[in-house]
Amino acid sequence: MTKEYIDNNRQKFIDELIDLLKIPSVSADSKFKGNVRQAAEYVQQSLLTAGADRAEICETEGHPIVYGEKIVDPQLPTILVYGHYDVQPADPYELWDSPPFEPVIKDEKIYARGACDDKGQMFMHIKAFEAMKATDALACNVKFMIEGEEEVGSDNLEVFIRENKEKLAADIILISDTAIIANDTPSITVGLRGLSYMEVEVTGPNRDLHSGVYGGAVANPINILCEMITSLMNKDGHITIPGFYDKVAELSGPEREAMNAAPFNLDEYKQELDIKEVKGEKGYTTLERVGIRPTLDVNGIWGGYTGEGAKTVLPSKAYAKISMRLVPNQDSGEITELFTQHFQSIAPDYVKVKATPHHGGEPAVTPTDSVAYAAASAAFEESWGKTPIPTRDGGSIPIVSLFKEVLGLDSVLMGFGLDSDAIHSPNEHYGLFNYMKGIETIAMFHKHFAKLNSST
Amino acid sequence: MTKEYIDNNRQKFIDELIDLLKIPSVSADSKFKGNVRQAAEYVQQSLLTAGADRAEICETEGHPIVYGEKIVDPQLPTILVYGHYDVQPADPYELWDSPPFEPVIKDEKIYARGACDDKGQMFMHIKAFEAMKATDALACNVKFMIEGEEEVGSDNLEVFIRENKEKLAADIILISDTAIIANDTPSITVGLRGLSYMEVEVTGPNRDLHSGVYGGAVANPINILCEMITSLMNKDGHITIPGFYDKVAELSGPEREAMNAAPFNLDEYKQELDIKEVKGEKGYTTLERVGIRPTLDVNGIWGGYTGEGAKTVLPSKAYAKISMRLVPNQDSGEITELFTQHFQSIAPDYVKVKATPHHGGEPAVTPTDSVAYAAASAAFEESWGKTPIPTRDGGSIPIVSLFKEVLGLDSVLMGFGLDSDAIHSPNEHYGLFNYMKGIETIAMFHKHFAKLNSST
Repeated sequence: MTKEYIDNNRQKFIDELIDLLKIPSVSADSKFKGNVRQAAEYVQQSLLTAGADRAEICETEGHPIVYGEKIVDPQLPTILVYGHYDVQPADPYELWDSPPFEPVIKDEKIYARGACDDKGQMFMHIKAFEAMKATDALACNVKFMIEGEEEVGSDNLEVFIRENKEKLAADIILISDTAIIANDTPSITVGLRGLSYMEVEVTGPNRDLHSGVYGGAVANPINILCEMITSLMNKDGHITIPGFYDKVAELSGPEREAMNAAPFNLDEYKQELDIKEVKGEKGYTTLERVGIRPTLDVNGIWGGYTGEGAKTVLPSKAYAKISMRLVPNQDSGEITELFTQHFQSIAPDYVKVKATPHHGGEPAVTPTDSVAYAAASAAFEESWGKTPIPTRDGGSIPIVSLFKEVLGLDSVLMGFGLDSDAIHSPNEHYGLFNYMKGIETIAMFHKHFAKLNSST
Repeated sequence: MTKEYIDNNRQKFIDELIDLLKIPSVSADSKFKGNVRQAAEYVQQSLLTAGADRAEICETEGHPIVYGEKIVDPQLPTILVYGHYDVQPADPYELWDSPPFEPVIKDEKIYARGACDDKGQMFMHIKAFEAMKATDALACNVKFMIEGEEEVGSDNLEVFIRENKEKLAADIILISDTAIIANDTPSITVGLRGLSYMEVEVTGPNRDLHSGVYGGAVANPINILCEMITSLMNKDGHITIPGFYDKVAELSGPEREAMNAAPFNLDEYKQELDIKEVKGEKGYTTLERVGIRPTLDVNGIWGGYTGEGAKTVLPSKAYAKISMRLVPNQDSGEITELFTQHFQSIAPDYVKVKATPHHGGEPAVTPTDSVAYAAASAAFEESWGKTPIPTRDGGSIPIVSLFKEVLGLDSVLMGFGLDSDAIHSPNEHYGLFNYMKGIETIAMFHKHFAKLNSST
């Protein structure tokens, strides 16, 4: 019945997602502030139309949080859905084949910023709810908490959950913001990396100088920044910040073996990215490098003259955005502090440096022996015909560890994206197969979660 | 008489320069193309008004060259004035205290892009010519060749001088595009560094990636570019490109002593730039580092996300603009080739690199035992009351060695700027004292050059 409703409403479900994708809700850039609110209102309206008892826009010091709920029966288990309606900045715009906020469907995929991360994946929950409600199949109570600041650190969400513990009371948190291995290889994410994101500024002379008049005699902050960045990792790909690895949880031999048993083809991986060689920490496989090891990447760098042509300037300042992915049991605040101290300590005398934290998040591992995991696994089995593989993802959903700490709730990371969906990149997209199959699987999760709860 | 005319016309001379400075003739940026031509027309008109026999706009494949002349008597010596009416890009605009193309006078200085480099210095020659013509004091024939592509490599000037050798026949080339040591310490530049300017591109994966999903497993082109840049210089400040120093002319002990005898206060230098320490090649003083040693500076770097906030991207590409200052007897084309080969050779397997030359120029040394140098020295003595000190400058005027090669002519580098004029930087300015004193000194050069020529 529910599946029939989903199939019959395919075009409507796609059209409604497209309308949401048209709203440029870029949380990082203040010029999109109005659009971010517009997206929140769209989510609120969608919840009400789908049949929520109530749906409200909760103000924060930043972008609002949308909260909605449908309490079928206080005796039934309650699922708290978390997702976000904000998106990453879309630049560089010139690398998109079609404008990022004018969604198009090509080869059975929707192309738009946020198509997968996370509008597409979040919206599946509202559509699954609508289908269950319309077909009288709601087996659990459901609450929705959809935020607008995931891409900028979820600072205000933390305040919100601390202040609304009762309202958010639930049995499990369900999140779709991760990827499966492949469309014929479903998987469930059971580990996530944390994040520490820094912006650094290196200042040399007090003004931009002529590189002919001063070059060779005055330290160039770009050269110095390059040296400092280079020194952050050694030749083996180890990060050189003192204390950085102190708390890293090392996996046992069997755990590593299980991890490396996941289907993975290095040649295809390299070919798909058009690279001759992969590069990472010595002694670990590619799956381990993105799953269980911490990393450091420069996400952006700028300084001096970057326009057309040539300008012989020795600039006053150079900047970089540097982020570190963290694993259990590293602590984001502690790593931010270690980075800041180290970066200051390696700055040579001829420059001044500043390191400012952007946002962070803690690494998380979710249990695989829970009722919720069993329900998710059963939902995949029923809809995909295959037992999903538990995987560890490189990405970060910092809020997962916070939910555990503040609300005492575990999360199930039932994502339906693919690594090739180009999230955070130009030409982000989301497969229509994944979108529709996800809606179906979510509805089955509700059913299995209710059934397994009643039988325990 | 001539000096009186100059003094009486002070305000007019300043107003006319301000009108020229209002034209944003940025040669590097194609969107200013029309303004570059407008500046050329202003120069042409100024020459005619000042009393030139003719002044014409000579088309090239790029921006035009203004040629003008006044032949008083074929028997008299001829001075060929070279200068440029194009300017460096003005960005970053936000660091200017007043808009770069709205000149203002503050503390007896004109603030505007090009105030010193080279509109202010070039225009002194037109005003000195006007003053001599108006007071019947022209002692030499004078030709003007004012180009619009100095800041982008003077490619078309080379074609022009090769095609117009007869028209440009002269006894000496006079150029004001350099600095004096201080307003109480006049100097004449006798050495200039050459230039090789490269743009490099490092490509990692074929698209921007999510740093959480791929970070740690795929080489980040920004990190790689930083490593490559860092490896271009060793800890002693020596450039590591094989063959780079092979042709560098080493100065003798006495030559180095003479050079270091020039007035220079390291503490004041550091204080003025607000730096704790200078940095340069081991074994050389600051004056030597900018005067007689080749250097390598990153003039610009960019890649990844550089906007507001945080974006966790592992970018596909990173870029830098890198320039090298060259000394006698290095060859710009050869160094460009050495750099390109070396940069390709140090690129690790996990990236692709491209190195594209922007423009170059040869180093030059001008004689101090010539009639022209004696005339310049006498002109300074008469107007400043001091014998000018011969100095070597770090900057490059690539055209000087070309003039020697193609026209067989030496140049006298009689500049009146100061190192603190912030050329190529925000808040470029030029002292009114320097502007007016320069006009006076140029007129005296004409007088002494004629006198010394007739006596030899």
